[in-house]
Amino acid sequence: MPQHPYSIQIRVFLTYMIAAALMILKLMAQGWMTVYRMIKSDSGLLNPEDLAPGPVNRNPRPQQLELNEYVDRSRRIQRNDLENIPAFLVAGLLFVAVRPSPLLADALMGTFVVARLLHTAAYLSKQRHEIRAVLFTIGSLVVIYMGIHVLIVAVSLL
Amino acid sequence: MPQHPYSIQIRVFLTYMIAAALMILKLMAQGWMTVYRMIKSDSGLLNPEDLAPGPVNRNPRPQQLELNEYVDRSRRIQRNDLENIPAFLVAGLLFVAVRPSPLLADALMGTFVVARLLHTAAYLSKQRHEIRAVLFTIGSLVVIYMGIHVLIVAVSLL
Amino acid sequence: MPQHPYSIQIRVFLTYMIAAALMILKLMAQGWMTVYRMIKSDSGLLNPEDLAPGPVNRNPRPQQLELNEYVDRSRRIQRNDLENIPAFLVAGLLFVAVRPSPLLADALMGTFVVARLLHTAAYLSKQRHEIRAVLFTIGSLVVIYMGIHVLIVAVSLL
Repeated sequence: MPQHPYSIQIRVFLTYMIAAALMILKLMAQGWMTVYRMIKSDSGLLNPEDLAPGPVNRNPRPQQLELNEYVDRSRRIQRNDLENIPAFLVAGLLFVAVRPSPLLADALMGTFVVARLLHTAAYLSKQRHEIRAVLFTIGSLVVIYMGIHVLIVAVSLL
Repeated sequence: MPQHPYSIQIRVFLTYMIAAALMILKLMAQGWMTVYRMIKSDSGLLNPEDLAPGPVNRNPRPQQLELNEYVDRSRRIQRNDLENIPAFLVAGLLFVAVRPSPLLADALMGTFVVARLLHTAAYLSKQRHEIRAVLFTIGSLVVIYMGIHVLIVAVSLL
Repeated sequence: MPQHPYSIQIRVFLTYMIAAALMILKLMAQGWMTVYRMIKSDSGLLNPEDLAPGPVNRNPRPQQLELNEYVDRSRRIQRNDLENIPAFLVAGLLFVAVRPSPLLADALMGTFVVARLLHTAAYLSKQRHEIRAVLFTIGSLVVIYMGIHVLIVAVSLL
């Protein structure tokens, strides 16, 4: 009998684990980029109590609560990630369960990871809207394909 | 010995796969609705660099960066989805692991999917707050029930 | 042959189920705290149509659409949770698949749950930025550790 699809002996599950771990680390890294940008710009705070003087805010002033483009850009990137990565994480897991070919899984999951990383690179370097749009589209189509594939297999097995 | 619960031979896992795939596709579709509304209204942009002239912005003007209610409504719907759907996706997966009856799983997961889709329909058609509140509540109670059910079973097995 | 890692006979999977269920319930509870604060302050609405008079809004006025710090604090907490909890939920699931020692899994997952709950407590009671930062860091490091651990195991098995 074949191994369960969620086994570390199954090639496609390993592909998924690598793609998922990279995307989880990317999500966490984006939070830390926001922290870094808040410290570097000494701005972009969100809460009134953050104006209390202390080790991380030695020179508090009300302007620190205003929207700071440098900090907010990192938050916008994270919001965009949150609109895409959690859906990918679950779609990929379910895709593994329907036992796709390793080649297809590698191609789809690798494409998603690369498209998402390039999307952030384009966002950070303020590339034009069209470039971000293309990279968003590629990642989105991967998730949509996996969702439809899973749906069709599951409905056919009911 | 019974099949592993995460097997496509298991009825409840198929129910989950269908509900999860529909909710993943719904999440992605909401992103595309935002894109559609940005194009249709030629507005609702988020980034200063999006004012560069190009194929997707032939007539740039600063007002495009202002909050646009038509576009922002789609973003608010997506935020509401992100507050509910990822939690459902994981709660449902864990619920499958405790081997609920297919009838209960069908009822809970089907209810969540329908309530979420109707919530978006009510949001888009600007129904009164009470209608959205009822549909939000139904979906939320499904997730809370599944979370408590999983918690009780897992604690009892420790 | 040993049980599949995603089996309710596996100690680490039970730990994960409990931690995940608690974090899912926490996420949903935060949504309800926002609802409670909207009702209590009779403010913090997001949609123009919410100004229609009705059972949940007996005295509508335009100011109800303005940002309300009391309500928005709960929304900020939820956003912070959404930046951390879904990543934990998937990282934890994949961590179970690489069969860590129960002691390590208990320590990491327990630490994440406690750090997240304390983060919300610190946010609600308007503690200084440093306290929130420490609690955010602890939870974030747990997810990053699990992501790197999963990545290393999966790459080594390719």
